[in-house]
Amino acid sequence: MSLTLKIGIAGLGTVGAGVVKIIDQHAAMLSARCGRDLVVTSVSARDRGKKRGIDLSNFAWLDDPAKLATATNVDVVVEVIGGSEGPALDVVTAAIAAGKSVVTANKALIARHGAALGTAAEAAGVALNFEAAVAGGIPVIKLLREGLAANANDHVFGILNGTCNYILTEMEKTGRDFNDVLADAQALGYAEADPTFDVDGIDTAHKLAILASVAFGAVVDFKSVYTEGIRQISAEDIQFAAELGYRIKLLGIARLYNGAIEQRVHPCMVPLDTAIAHVDGVTNAVVIEGDRAGRTVIEGQGAGEGPTASSVVADIMDIARGVLSPPFGHPSDQLHLFRPLEQDNHEGRYYIRLEVLDQSGVMADITAVLRDQEVSVASFIQRGRAPGEQVSVVILTHTAGEGCMKQSLELIESLDSVVEPPRMIRIKHL
Amino acid sequence: MSLTLKIGIAGLGTVGAGVVKIIDQHAAMLSARCGRDLVVTSVSARDRGKKRGIDLSNFAWLDDPAKLATATNVDVVVEVIGGSEGPALDVVTAAIAAGKSVVTANKALIARHGAALGTAAEAAGVALNFEAAVAGGIPVIKLLREGLAANANDHVFGILNGTCNYILTEMEKTGRDFNDVLADAQALGYAEADPTFDVDGIDTAHKLAILASVAFGAVVDFKSVYTEGIRQISAEDIQFAAELGYRIKLLGIARLYNGAIEQRVHPCMVPLDTAIAHVDGVTNAVVIEGDRAGRTVIEGQGAGEGPTASSVVADIMDIARGVLSPPFGHPSDQLHLFRPLEQDNHEGRYYIRLEVLDQSGVMADITAVLRDQEVSVASFIQRGRAPGEQVSVVILTHTAGEGCMKQSLELIESLDSVVEPPRMIRIKHL
Repeated sequence: MSLTLKIGIAGLGTVGAGVVKIIDQHAAMLSARCGRDLVVTSVSARDRGKKRGIDLSNFAWLDDPAKLATATNVDVVVEVIGGSEGPALDVVTAAIAAGKSVVTANKALIARHGAALGTAAEAAGVALNFEAAVAGGIPVIKLLREGLAANANDHVFGILNGTCNYILTEMEKTGRDFNDVLADAQALGYAEADPTFDVDGIDTAHKLAILASVAFGAVVDFKSVYTEGIRQISAEDIQFAAELGYRIKLLGIARLYNGAIEQRVHPCMVPLDTAIAHVDGVTNAVVIEGDRAGRTVIEGQGAGEGPTASSVVADIMDIARGVLSPPFGHPSDQLHLFRPLEQDNHEGRYYIRLEVLDQSGVMADITAVLRDQEVSVASFIQRGRAPGEQVSVVILTHTAGEGCMKQSLELIESLDSVVEPPRMIRIKHL
Repeated sequence: MSLTLKIGIAGLGTVGAGVVKIIDQHAAMLSARCGRDLVVTSVSARDRGKKRGIDLSNFAWLDDPAKLATATNVDVVVEVIGGSEGPALDVVTAAIAAGKSVVTANKALIARHGAALGTAAEAAGVALNFEAAVAGGIPVIKLLREGLAANANDHVFGILNGTCNYILTEMEKTGRDFNDVLADAQALGYAEADPTFDVDGIDTAHKLAILASVAFGAVVDFKSVYTEGIRQISAEDIQFAAELGYRIKLLGIARLYNGAIEQRVHPCMVPLDTAIAHVDGVTNAVVIEGDRAGRTVIEGQGAGEGPTASSVVADIMDIARGVLSPPFGHPSDQLHLFRPLEQDNHEGRYYIRLEVLDQSGVMADITAVLRDQEVSVASFIQRGRAPGEQVSVVILTHTAGEGCMKQSLELIESLDSVVEPPRMIRIKHL
């Protein structure tokens, strides 16, 4: 093992530049901590002239990132280009094929190609580290893969997308509606011009699939994740949630049930007296239930230059120290392929908001539907009375099957006195 | 590296038995995760016949734990005897001398002898892992040593003693006094018959000294930790804290200031709107401020068979996977010996409760003392009026020096109308 670890970086956006800065500014500390010097030797990005606040003059420049894989002055390839296909996939594939360890912050890549890339890395005897792909600066992959490695886990969940959590927090604080707050978040740089990946839950689903794999020793299975975003959450729902003692959070939740795996991303009502309800703004949090350690909760910054680069550099340091674990914690040929649990088979409690005409017989019709579908009502709120006009009716159910719940809502929507599509939010009891 | 890692365990109390159970019950999972079989071969404890719920028949029994160090069927020695001297120190010293890696859950041992033992382990090229010594099942040592290793940290603090946190939580919930709740905690097994180590803050100080060392790359320096326990906290103080928007927690706090280190353990008033204020019962939590990752908070079970054994086994797994880091994160010859900051030089805000005779001139005398000592008052509470009788007066100060604060309290105590020694609790703003 040579004393210096030579690093090639593919992608010099916010994260790539952050990695260069840490390695430069903390050189002595990093070298002391891992017993070797870390040196960036080569970089590749689309635009060489772009202002980044870092000095590129000491680095070899490669126009084609995949060339980092075969560059003789590169021991480790850091992929921070992003995107599940194209150059990101090419450089990671090429690096593993060339027998080089890889560090990536790319959740889409690992969620979609993690099983194949992990198998290839293991066969090549190289590391494939992706701490920064999940929850930014929170070292939750290491927590699962090493710190809590003595536990059989059956439940992991969390707030994994800072953009959504920021929007929901602002909606609650200001009483404003989703589109309003989203526009502000875009202006502030907390949301992308095309916010689809974040607000529709896809980013959370990527991260959840990776977390579930490492937590359960499962083959990463992104395509089975049930995914629902926050566009349908209204200021009214947030207000009702608060009245009922809940806060609305977009959660990614993975559970094992007797050989089946449940992976779902959707808004949840979480009780106000839980830690997760108080995770505000762009902060992320992950909750892990282990059979020995019990419940562990870790909170921190889920995005941004410093936090994400912190995780990338920690991954590089593990490689410098010679740490080599299977990418998903278990050897790839021992990862389980669990049967995915259909979302319709989910059981839980539900919040329903109906907009109805306040006229006699409405409640009887609604409750009859619920009774026929075996959905038992825990409580009702009807705000005000306005005979003949539209009022909101909120129902909290006891535990019910999601299939029955969906069937009920279709039937309720078809009632004449129900004037808007019903809204439904799942309740997460911890 | 032989395929099987052979483990010798010194001490078969709750934790030792828990380690044996995990290694037995999770054998296949652990072997998959670290690529080698983990096998307990030898054990040593005081009483061979004691009921422990584990089968000892497959293990070699040694009456003298130090013999594990030279036993040919032992690769790693696990020390879970406890106590900073005697057999625990002997077995760890002997194991390192014999070139064997050590895993220990012993905070007193590491706080008092960590510097020497760490240096010896490094010189011998063996691991000295002590995850379970701090915060039980929370892998905070690994978090600092590896997951957040790219950060320069200047502040780490937390709730590190479940017994104290349980007592304070119960006092708040029930309004009962310290001695009452302590007696209950003893009956329930949450506090020892001799609760000194816990309630006087010594246990927290042990853990804090270890945390500070790993967080800051500092030589572990337990003897400089300023330590104050919770015996002086009264139901009244808890009540006033709640009225003022605070909760009282026993915190261990370590900070770096320009080459000086502050390490202190004492009750703190923490604002109700912070995560740490909501860490209740026997749960532990640690907050780390890194220059890149920002604030990371980790909560979990700080004691008990499962959580503590979870951390011990994770440490064993690291050894099985060939991970070898300097015990305190930095090589021992590069650990800094920071100048300890005297507690009298601490600056912060303070809560003071005075019991005074409600007569004219009292407040003028008290405020004159504070003014003369340059302690500026932020707010006052006087509960009720009872001319000529005893009333409580609560004062919150602006930032003041602790030396001035102590001087003020001595002068105030000497006033005729002040009928009890003043109570003082430091306020922690996050």
